[in-house]
Amino acid sequence: MTTLKLVGATAPAHKLWGGRFAGETAPALDALNRSIGTDFRLWPFDIRLSKAWAVALWNAGVLPLEESQRMERGLDAVAARLRAGATPAASDEDVHTMIDRLLHEEIGDLASKLHTGRSRNDQVATATRLWAMDACAALDTAIRGLQRVMLEHATALDREGALMPAYTHLQRAQPVAAAHWMLSHFWPLDRDRARVAAAARAAATLPLGSGAVAGCAYPISRVLLQGSLGFARLSPNSIDAVSDRDFVAELLFALTMLGTHLSRLAEDLILYGTSEFGFVQFGDAYTTGSSMMPQKRNPDALELTRGAAPRMLGDLVTLLGTLKGLPSGYNKDLQDDKRALFDAVDTMHLVLPATAGALAECTFRTERMRDALSSAMMATDLADYLVRKGATFREAHGAVGRLVRESEETGTELHSLPFKSFAAAHPLFDHDVYEALSAAASVERRDVEGGTGPNALRDQLEAARAAIAQ
Amino acid sequence: MTTLKLVGATAPAHKLWGGRFAGETAPALDALNRSIGTDFRLWPFDIRLSKAWAVALWNAGVLPLEESQRMERGLDAVAARLRAGATPAASDEDVHTMIDRLLHEEIGDLASKLHTGRSRNDQVATATRLWAMDACAALDTAIRGLQRVMLEHATALDREGALMPAYTHLQRAQPVAAAHWMLSHFWPLDRDRARVAAAARAAATLPLGSGAVAGCAYPISRVLLQGSLGFARLSPNSIDAVSDRDFVAELLFALTMLGTHLSRLAEDLILYGTSEFGFVQFGDAYTTGSSMMPQKRNPDALELTRGAAPRMLGDLVTLLGTLKGLPSGYNKDLQDDKRALFDAVDTMHLVLPATAGALAECTFRTERMRDALSSAMMATDLADYLVRKGATFREAHGAVGRLVRESEETGTELHSLPFKSFAAAHPLFDHDVYEALSAAASVERRDVEGGTGPNALRDQLEAARAAIAQ
Amino acid sequence: MTTLKLVGATAPAHKLWGGRFAGETAPALDALNRSIGTDFRLWPFDIRLSKAWAVALWNAGVLPLEESQRMERGLDAVAARLRAGATPAASDEDVHTMIDRLLHEEIGDLASKLHTGRSRNDQVATATRLWAMDACAALDTAIRGLQRVMLEHATALDREGALMPAYTHLQRAQPVAAAHWMLSHFWPLDRDRARVAAAARAAATLPLGSGAVAGCAYPISRVLLQGSLGFARLSPNSIDAVSDRDFVAELLFALTMLGTHLSRLAEDLILYGTSEFGFVQFGDAYTTGSSMMPQKRNPDALELTRGAAPRMLGDLVTLLGTLKGLPSGYNKDLQDDKRALFDAVDTMHLVLPATAGALAECTFRTERMRDALSSAMMATDLADYLVRKGATFREAHGAVGRLVRESEETGTELHSLPFKSFAAAHPLFDHDVYEALSAAASVERRDVEGGTGPNALRDQLEAARAAIAQ
Amino acid sequence: MTTLKLVGATAPAHKLWGGRFAGETAPALDALNRSIGTDFRLWPFDIRLSKAWAVALWNAGVLPLEESQRMERGLDAVAARLRAGATPAASDEDVHTMIDRLLHEEIGDLASKLHTGRSRNDQVATATRLWAMDACAALDTAIRGLQRVMLEHATALDREGALMPAYTHLQRAQPVAAAHWMLSHFWPLDRDRARVAAAARAAATLPLGSGAVAGCAYPISRVLLQGSLGFARLSPNSIDAVSDRDFVAELLFALTMLGTHLSRLAEDLILYGTSEFGFVQFGDAYTTGSSMMPQKRNPDALELTRGAAPRMLGDLVTLLGTLKGLPSGYNKDLQDDKRALFDAVDTMHLVLPATAGALAECTFRTERMRDALSSAMMATDLADYLVRKGATFREAHGAVGRLVRESEETGTELHSLPFKSFAAAHPLFDHDVYEALSAAASVERRDVEGGTGPNALRDQLEAARAAIAQ
Repeated sequence: MTTLKLVGATAPAHKLWGGRFAGETAPALDALNRSIGTDFRLWPFDIRLSKAWAVALWNAGVLPLEESQRMERGLDAVAARLRAGATPAASDEDVHTMIDRLLHEEIGDLASKLHTGRSRNDQVATATRLWAMDACAALDTAIRGLQRVMLEHATALDREGALMPAYTHLQRAQPVAAAHWMLSHFWPLDRDRARVAAAARAAATLPLGSGAVAGCAYPISRVLLQGSLGFARLSPNSIDAVSDRDFVAELLFALTMLGTHLSRLAEDLILYGTSEFGFVQFGDAYTTGSSMMPQKRNPDALELTRGAAPRMLGDLVTLLGTLKGLPSGYNKDLQDDKRALFDAVDTMHLVLPATAGALAECTFRTERMRDALSSAMMATDLADYLVRKGATFREAHGAVGRLVRESEETGTELHSLPFKSFAAAHPLFDHDVYEALSAAASVERRDVEGGTGPNALRDQLEAARAAIAQ
Repeated sequence: MTTLKLVGATAPAHKLWGGRFAGETAPALDALNRSIGTDFRLWPFDIRLSKAWAVALWNAGVLPLEESQRMERGLDAVAARLRAGATPAASDEDVHTMIDRLLHEEIGDLASKLHTGRSRNDQVATATRLWAMDACAALDTAIRGLQRVMLEHATALDREGALMPAYTHLQRAQPVAAAHWMLSHFWPLDRDRARVAAAARAAATLPLGSGAVAGCAYPISRVLLQGSLGFARLSPNSIDAVSDRDFVAELLFALTMLGTHLSRLAEDLILYGTSEFGFVQFGDAYTTGSSMMPQKRNPDALELTRGAAPRMLGDLVTLLGTLKGLPSGYNKDLQDDKRALFDAVDTMHLVLPATAGALAECTFRTERMRDALSSAMMATDLADYLVRKGATFREAHGAVGRLVRESEETGTELHSLPFKSFAAAHPLFDHDVYEALSAAASVERRDVEGGTGPNALRDQLEAARAAIAQ
Repeated sequence: MTTLKLVGATAPAHKLWGGRFAGETAPALDALNRSIGTDFRLWPFDIRLSKAWAVALWNAGVLPLEESQRMERGLDAVAARLRAGATPAASDEDVHTMIDRLLHEEIGDLASKLHTGRSRNDQVATATRLWAMDACAALDTAIRGLQRVMLEHATALDREGALMPAYTHLQRAQPVAAAHWMLSHFWPLDRDRARVAAAARAAATLPLGSGAVAGCAYPISRVLLQGSLGFARLSPNSIDAVSDRDFVAELLFALTMLGTHLSRLAEDLILYGTSEFGFVQFGDAYTTGSSMMPQKRNPDALELTRGAAPRMLGDLVTLLGTLKGLPSGYNKDLQDDKRALFDAVDTMHLVLPATAGALAECTFRTERMRDALSSAMMATDLADYLVRKGATFREAHGAVGRLVRESEETGTELHSLPFKSFAAAHPLFDHDVYEALSAAASVERRDVEGGTGPNALRDQLEAARAAIAQ
Repeated sequence: MTTLKLVGATAPAHKLWGGRFAGETAPALDALNRSIGTDFRLWPFDIRLSKAWAVALWNAGVLPLEESQRMERGLDAVAARLRAGATPAASDEDVHTMIDRLLHEEIGDLASKLHTGRSRNDQVATATRLWAMDACAALDTAIRGLQRVMLEHATALDREGALMPAYTHLQRAQPVAAAHWMLSHFWPLDRDRARVAAAARAAATLPLGSGAVAGCAYPISRVLLQGSLGFARLSPNSIDAVSDRDFVAELLFALTMLGTHLSRLAEDLILYGTSEFGFVQFGDAYTTGSSMMPQKRNPDALELTRGAAPRMLGDLVTLLGTLKGLPSGYNKDLQDDKRALFDAVDTMHLVLPATAGALAECTFRTERMRDALSSAMMATDLADYLVRKGATFREAHGAVGRLVRESEETGTELHSLPFKSFAAAHPLFDHDVYEALSAAASVERRDVEGGTGPNALRDQLEAARAAIAQ
């Protein structure tokens, strides 16, 4: 998270209020209250909404055209200074106060009129929503970047016809196409993209024009503001508008789910990259060594990715904990919403490229995958074989269970058991039973939609390509 | 939460597996593993999907029509017994095992064939999704029930022209229509309904036909299953399908947000119902007394509602914590998803009617509300007055701040200050300044969309009526 | 969790209050409010404290001895009925109301006098604390049960001299004694026991005598109550006493940490039990099969154990979320504390025996462990070898890194590299270098306190035995 | 949180490893991995432990005295440069790498020998524990600072004999001494201090000498290290030692509880500072104004304090989520522990002084408190009156309930009801009943330990003074 630290600020603060106050605020309050270290990044959005407000004030007859235009030019000049690296003064309480100060420097006392009919309550809500809408678009791009890597691996693994064990309970379950496994991590991200898009839609409600809490006392056109700022709808109630943080929670939730999906991908890759599994070799560029053990190749990127989900969850818990039991209207507790939001989004922008890079640099050791396909994994196929010959599934399941036990106890792979073992287990077994024990045949048979069979997989790859193109 | 406790179960379990196992499972494992106390309620959905599966097996040529139909009738008979009150045997591990046992009682060994091509992994995922789709519909109705009460209060308060203070930082901020405050709690619920609907859509992905993890080895028509069970789409990947619990998390999140909104409503009502605020009198039917203090009238329903949000959040944290870092494919950890889901939904079905009832029985004491409209709350209007006369907002803010201070220090309400005080504070004050200090005028001026003004409020009430009708 | 569901309760409630109320409470409030399904289990503690209170009332001169004694006998009779299986009536709001009703049945109107000077607020807090103190003792026993299994395995593995890889980043790091690994899970539980004991101490503060909020108006001896109920100290402030739930949070936190440690143990065992690692074979009694795949042996107990930590965490989040921002004094939101507490404790009493059993039934495959000790893991020892000969650690680390790379690129284990490779990597390598590549020697050298060396391990086993004996 | 942002770092990293790696690490990994922005603050502790390690290496015969002393002097020189403001280079991965680089600059290649027998795994664990022990001491001081303010207010309120309503369910319950209310917030902090102290003790376990995971291969005296670094005990198992983060979780939990207590204090003060309650007037130095409403005096410090509890909770959830299901030994996921820890501690060091300051500047309006003591609050006393005259508590409760209802319906305070109303409610009422309706008498009667009566309060104040002195 970007945090501009301003230790030891002692200059008197530039404040947007103060007439009725006898003394200065205490340094301990200033230190707790000052949010510019967090909210500085809102400046482009605050400038944008302020320019729109300047126009709206003219449109409402509150300001003459000339003043409105001077304001706009002043705000452009402020933006230019900020782009050029202007940094907060120690006395700037938050980004809005800072921009107000700079605008005064540009256009003098006219700057003051920009506050007409507007409150920091609707202003900060609007700026945060603009930022969130923007962030959602960037997140979508980053997620797609990772999906693209998955699709490339899946395509290559499919081309190679690579098979591997699918696991349930981390026990080898059934053979699948390795591309099918890879794509099993693609679709969760597709759902994440849908949630990020929904969060963007939730953000696209315009609070500006709600004043401090009761609405705006000037005949401002909120419809005009909505259009010029790119919002999808107007907030329907000013009290709600200044304290509605649902959109922040929605985005944090979407990121927590995304983080959770990434943690599962990371876990798979970390496991597959152990000496014991050996399905994956990590690239040097995405592993680190040990200060003590010269042989180590540690998948740091993936481990940090695995740990990101709880961080998102912590941010979500913080926000929801803050909102719980708050009286209606704006309360200062809400100020901390941005810290949680920015932390989660920033972290995701570190995690997504690192995960995409780490995955891209993975080499899949398809021969190790194939070696892991012990014939016990075809036990279900063996049961299906009996079912096709007329046994009930339960009978079949039982018969095969006994064969598996014999195989384990004698240390013989299923396909190496003598035929008499099969015959003893169930009368419907015939000599073609050994064909049922081929991993390739097992995979081919599972060809309904969403299955690992070749036609289903081809369709799935196509669907993934289409999804990514959107 | 409904929990059927089965202490001391010692009968040997009816299991869907076992052929390869030498001994019995340990009682300590059975006790931990047995989920029927939680998942019993899934039975109607398990029956439904099993009937659809029986048809699909026939359709795929796996079963003759006659067997498929006997299965359907058998499942109907099982459903009838369950509806009539059949309860789990101590040996039933979960609801699926129980139904399997009952079906065996009805149609003998044919019951066994129902497991053809199906695994508990896709079965339980499908049943849970059907349950969730159903639950979302019921939740929507319950939320609308509460919204209706809000709308009725808002309509009555509007008819009465009731005004009250809006608060920010829990300090009196500006006068608003009491109906405007009431509706500020309506719109959050509208967003909640949208999230519940989105969760229902997320649930409407059919996993059935995914088998244990690799897909189904029989030519089942998943499209037919989708149609007959009312799903919106097919799961695209079988590995993902058996362990995707996004829909549970989405619903838990939606309920957490709903709970959070209810906690804010409850907080407002609890505050307004204190002797100190006195805006609300609670109905006897929704308050309780004290075992010690005979005068007490405690808003228990609202306090328990306020506490419900953290409970939802706890359920969400549990699920997301469980999912974090799980390897792909089904893992037993997932079994606990239903406990969290049912707990949150059940709690909401207690909380929503109690909140609706408690709110319905509230009497708003509009005269107390009006008495709370001190003229200091019109300070913004006073500043607006100066702005309209040509002052900058900053100047105006400062001048009014000084007047407020004078008012406080002399213990005089703003509207009782002598004109010379106004004149001293700013030269633009004229004798019409006292009109700016009327609460009614203040409210009327805030008439942009979403504001508390009369036209805006009329539109808002209409929009609320339309929202509820959907 | 035990939940006694009382659907459709319609009988008029037996209440401890009501004089000032005009009507009945609404069924929706009753449904939300009724806690007896949760708090019924408090009855033995409520009886105990009530008997102590009866004595205290006599001691304070409020009741004659005869009445006090009749009360005690009446409470004993109520306890007998409860022990014999008396269940709540539909009208019983909570366990305290139920006991009050039963006591009236036993001793008539005298029962009423038991409420003298006592409130449900201090009563329920006291009963919950007594329950928690009791629960902590039972938890300690259950934790020690699991520690004992660990110690037995460790002792056996040590006797066998079993070595295995220790992992960091899930990459093979260095060889260790298998007993050392086993004990690495022992010590976290030791810390958990300390936390459970601290939670018991936190619970041992007596609230009884605090009344509803202001203290007791009768000259009750709280010191006498403390002594007879086994508390360690008196609550110092009555307002704090009726709403202090720190002890619940502390116990929930202790259980969350315990759950977290168990999740790490479970993860290790699940990994070591895969076909790929193969260090552990699960016992049949603690694994389950698959309804579809006859070969499966799923470590359900361990997976459910892994999932328990988030459940504890959810309970903790719920409680802390509830407490956040509550005004001082008792608030009804607090009622839900018991649900969270009981859920966590009950879950732990399922998880601990299942984990102990599952671990006890594990067979360690020490030959597989030994096979996993590739010589690259002795790279640190190789570096240490050079350091001992006079190289800096950094030089040594670099030289060994190059050897590891050569070993990987040529597919040759380190100990099979020709001596000229060593000589080329660093001039200080001598022919005795091959001895540095023995796993046994590597383990022996790490013999400082807490290390895996033989003396250190012997001391560690002894310390573990001593810890468990406490 | 202090975060040193190092955007655009492109210089090749100074690393403690690398010999076996072919290429450079990817910038995306570096960006995710680099922790110096967070862990820079560990430098004084890293220096301390490194100096102790240099001595230990000499003591073990690994280094000659002269080299050990040169290392110590070198580390002192590095510390001097850091104290003087040396900042990280873009290539410094973490604080340990940075110090290694600086030490090389000071003493050349000898610096390298400091890594002998030590790993970053035990090093970072040790440094973090030293930091935590230090932080606990500072937190204790800050908590006591707030307690002192409470004690001062309590003493003053007691001197004034100020009475106020105690609330339950936020309904006026019974009269209490205002000092008693103030102290009800003192004791929770006392429990927090105990938890912080316990967290300090948990931190005081020395991991140094555990190496990467298996222990140290050099005959280092860990006892000497323990003594020189001020730890209370040695870690008993090296695998556990490098991944034990219980002490971080304990401190985060202690801070979450503290935050929760502060949120309740803040809530009380925010409520009491409303126009409606009016018990408290906030000081100008700890309130802020509004950019729009000139009359506002917002208790920002208290609102931000109320919001701090969820932030602590979020940090705790993050850590516990990270730990869940991690395999044993060090995993990179653990790196994020420090971010959570520092965030919580830093936030507390902003919140505690601001809360102490805000509370110190509060003026208690004792006349408003007294005015809030309506005679209905003496209903319990009225019931006690009847009990003392021989009624059962239940009868008494019922009779008083009816009087309260009459009082409400007729709009007459209880003490203004005619005697015939009392006589009608219960025959035991006598004319002295009006004395029972005095708030002062009610308070005086509640004089058992922990009650609000004068003797009990005197003892309580004394106990508080003693607690703070420790």
